Amino acid sequence: MDFDAMFNAQLDDLKQEGNYRVFAELERRCGAYPRAKSHDDLTPDEVTVWCSNDYLGMGQHQDVRDAMKAAVDSCGAGAGGTRNISGTNHHHVRLEAELADLHRKEAALLFTSGYVSNWAALSTLGSRIPDAVILSDALNHASMIEGIRHSRARKVIWKHNDPEDLDRKLAVLPANAPKIVAFESVYSMDGDISPMAEIVEVAEKHGAMTYLDEVHAVGLYGPRGGGVSEREGLADRITLIEGTLGKAYGCVGGYITGSAALCDFIRSFASGFIFTTALPPAVAAAALTSVRHLKTSQVERQAQRRQVARLRAKLDAQGIPHMDNPSHIIPVMIKDPVKCRMLSDILMRDWGIYVQPINYPTVPKGTERLRFTPSPLHSDADIDRLVEALTVLWKQCALAHAVA
Amino acid sequence: MDFDAMFNAQLDDLKQEGNYRVFAELERRCGAYPRAKSHDDLTPDEVTVWCSNDYLGMGQHQDVRDAMKAAVDSCGAGAGGTRNISGTNHHHVRLEAELADLHRKEAALLFTSGYVSNWAALSTLGSRIPDAVILSDALNHASMIEGIRHSRARKVIWKHNDPEDLDRKLAVLPANAPKIVAFESVYSMDGDISPMAEIVEVAEKHGAMTYLDEVHAVGLYGPRGGGVSEREGLADRITLIEGTLGKAYGCVGGYITGSAALCDFIRSFASGFIFTTALPPAVAAAALTSVRHLKTSQVERQAQRRQVARLRAKLDAQGIPHMDNPSHIIPVMIKDPVKCRMLSDILMRDWGIYVQPINYPTVPKGTERLRFTPSPLHSDADIDRLVEALTVLWKQCALAHAVA
Repeated sequence: MDFDAMFNAQLDDLKQEGNYRVFAELERRCGAYPRAKSHDDLTPDEVTVWCSNDYLGMGQHQDVRDAMKAAVDSCGAGAGGTRNISGTNHHHVRLEAELADLHRKEAALLFTSGYVSNWAALSTLGSRIPDAVILSDALNHASMIEGIRHSRARKVIWKHNDPEDLDRKLAVLPANAPKIVAFESVYSMDGDISPMAEIVEVAEKHGAMTYLDEVHAVGLYGPRGGGVSEREGLADRITLIEGTLGKAYGCVGGYITGSAALCDFIRSFASGFIFTTALPPAVAAAALTSVRHLKTSQVERQAQRRQVARLRAKLDAQGIPHMDNPSHIIPVMIKDPVKCRMLSDILMRDWGIYVQPINYPTVPKGTERLRFTPSPLHSDADIDRLVEALTVLWKQCALAHAVA
Repeated sequence: MDFDAMFNAQLDDLKQEGNYRVFAELERRCGAYPRAKSHDDLTPDEVTVWCSNDYLGMGQHQDVRDAMKAAVDSCGAGAGGTRNISGTNHHHVRLEAELADLHRKEAALLFTSGYVSNWAALSTLGSRIPDAVILSDALNHASMIEGIRHSRARKVIWKHNDPEDLDRKLAVLPANAPKIVAFESVYSMDGDISPMAEIVEVAEKHGAMTYLDEVHAVGLYGPRGGGVSEREGLADRITLIEGTLGKAYGCVGGYITGSAALCDFIRSFASGFIFTTALPPAVAAAALTSVRHLKTSQVERQAQRRQVARLRAKLDAQGIPHMDNPSHIIPVMIKDPVKCRMLSDILMRDWGIYVQPINYPTVPKGTERLRFTPSPLHSDADIDRLVEALTVLWKQCALAHAVA
């Protein structure tokens, strides 16, 4: 069996479709975000990153870095074990308390990533609650889909952001079956936000548990950064809120919050929690600092909103079509994987503007896009330059303009 | 549906069985490993950690900490995105090159943890290679089991460390079916080492790919820390070597190494690789330093072996039974979850000795144990004190002595 030949054949298919991924090798520059050094010979030495999920630039915040370095010096580089076997550090415990408070829940539980938190929590709930049915929004993230799949629980997909469809699908299930409604607040690729109040109401009507992924919202929405559920005053009606420390908080790691019993249940039974080395204490210390900072500081959120609005207005003025949504994510649709890659390459090479092409499987085929995430650290001049570049390219490529 | 009541009922069952886990809240002290501050009021303020997987204490190594802090200051706390979308940093690329070299393979691929590397790689291989059959050693780690389960490929379990059983099970499979033989080098709970040459020979005879987990061996075995496969001169005959940065290297993260086509295949298709924030560049920088150090330095490995031998000899002298094995792991069998927990509690409270009870599901019920991992940083006095404590406890508890 020639395994390499088989691997190469499947990779060739990807290349044919235009979906083969080439990673940009960068070094973000602390103190100079969104600037980064590029290690690609074909690009300028310094580029401006326009597609990071470090949405507020907290990864370079002096307090966050100081907390991380101090913990490296006091505790060392890694945790030294799983949470159960010598790996629970005081910093983990403090961070879990802080996250529980962030969402006004009894408890929180840390995971090595947001992906693992979704996968582990949903696979445990679905497999250990007898006869559970998981009702999953059609556009849920891969980590949720894989968790549900792994649980082997019955799965019902409801139309994206459609509480009426959810209601219909809940209504036909047996009344006594345990039901879990899984959805997100901000969907990262379209930037749309779920109708949370309606979804919660429908779930409550049917006695279903609610599982909410807030990874693209924590730190960014709500007066303390508690996400859309905080902003809408709905957190106490959601059973489980999942979030990440790797996006607005600028670090890495994921978590769930909920009742003490719920978190203890996942802690005690989730393979993906139990059998893995704990996050480095220094990452927990950095994340704690970031979460605390964004609980009180509004500066970063306000500046981000201003720059998001500015970029949208400038794109509109030039007739460059972008997806309308109420979030901080600005998708510019290209709808072709090869063109999307080409535009990205030109922006990088000729303009020093880095925006990764978003192709399948991250988005459905035919919906390829460039996805811009303006941060408080993108200056007005950065925005002007991006819009100038896109305007030139739009003319060159004769892509469809939005008609005013 | 009262979900909390259901969670509590299942947790009560765990408590009844003696398998409910209580985490020790510690702060390891840099420069003073294996000492840690304990945050539990019932224990001494300072304890000695005897169950860490930071096997060589590299987590506190000055060069590793310095590299981590320098990268925090140059690049920031987190990576800022997935590997594809702005999250690939120069430090990741350098570390992957170093890991490929460590195992003399063409390429390497980083994951957020060892757990994720096994889960993602095996689930991708099993699901994307048509008609694949995975032959899994009976005692493989949870992450491998879950990865194989997730792939939904046909799975055949062979007797632990038994190449003859593997041979028989391979022989009855269709000749043209793609076969993957998955096993470990050092099994972490019994500390036994697989008969690698025989397994490789059997796999080659049947044209099977070999998938080897070396997480409890990298950094520790082989002249450059390349694991048992390096020590035995077998690395070039193994298709895929998986390892971790979270144990002997003292950091966090996992990886695979293999042919360029293999790594590119996993990189391009594994959900658990694609849809997750990359490791912090600072973690990659720290791990790189640790891997490089252990490629040339023999001091840590030699000192560890000396202390492992010393503890074994002292235990033998006192007639305290421990599992015989050729590795650095010393399991002392208790065979009862409640007694195991009790002994651990007494050691912690009365002696300031921290060794976590290892109960189900980490080990099968009835094989509960205390698992000691002597490091180069445990002094002779530490060992003497541990053996003194165990000797006193053995007498008190009237547990079975090994008969000389």
